[in-house]
Amino acid sequence: MDVIKVSGTSRTSAVAGAIAGVFRENKRAEVQAIGAGAVNQAVKALVLSRGYLAEDGYDVVFTAEFSDVDIDGKVRTAIKITVQSRLPVTAGDAPPPSSP
Amino acid sequence: MDVIKVSGTSRTSAVAGAIAGVFRENKRAEVQAIGAGAVNQAVKALVLSRGYLAEDGYDVVFTAEFSDVDIDGKVRTAIKITVQSRLPVTAGDAPPPSSP
Repeated sequence: MDVIKVSGTSRTSAVAGAIAGVFRENKRAEVQAIGAGAVNQAVKALVLSRGYLAEDGYDVVFTAEFSDVDIDGKVRTAIKITVQSRLPVTAGDAPPPSSP
Repeated sequence: MDVIKVSGTSRTSAVAGAIAGVFRENKRAEVQAIGAGAVNQAVKALVLSRGYLAEDGYDVVFTAEFSDVDIDGKVRTAIKITVQSRLPVTAGDAPPPSSP
């Protein structure tokens, strides 16, 4: 599964579509952002993607962690955000209903 | 429950401590950020708070939404991030074990 890399100039709707597409295929998506502008675009895209996926019956949640990445030989600290179903989904199961 | 308001100059460790404190009391916390710098500080604080709360046995996840707020008579779009246990917790229950 490819990590979706977001920059400060990424279009949020395009990133949201990518997140939803990867999630539908893998039941999981990972987003990477470096810097305030990129993190902001990533979070806005996550809000949109949560809406898209809710239409498909998925109640998705996020976790975030720091992740060191090598950019042109320099180590930078990225934020990695993982998108998952709130409840564990077994392969073949229907998506869980939304929480009340 | 008070919403934790984060600015671009908020210290991430202080915000993370506030998130963990509110979560321990209410089993839920809400963080509000307006602008890229504030959203970035909020997400970094969320990463730290997830670590703090994991030490207490909580597996917390985030959801994010847009929220219109009135600042000095002007409507601005904030990002509101909600921190919750991954699994629903009934009052009086021990925190659920982390997912494998």
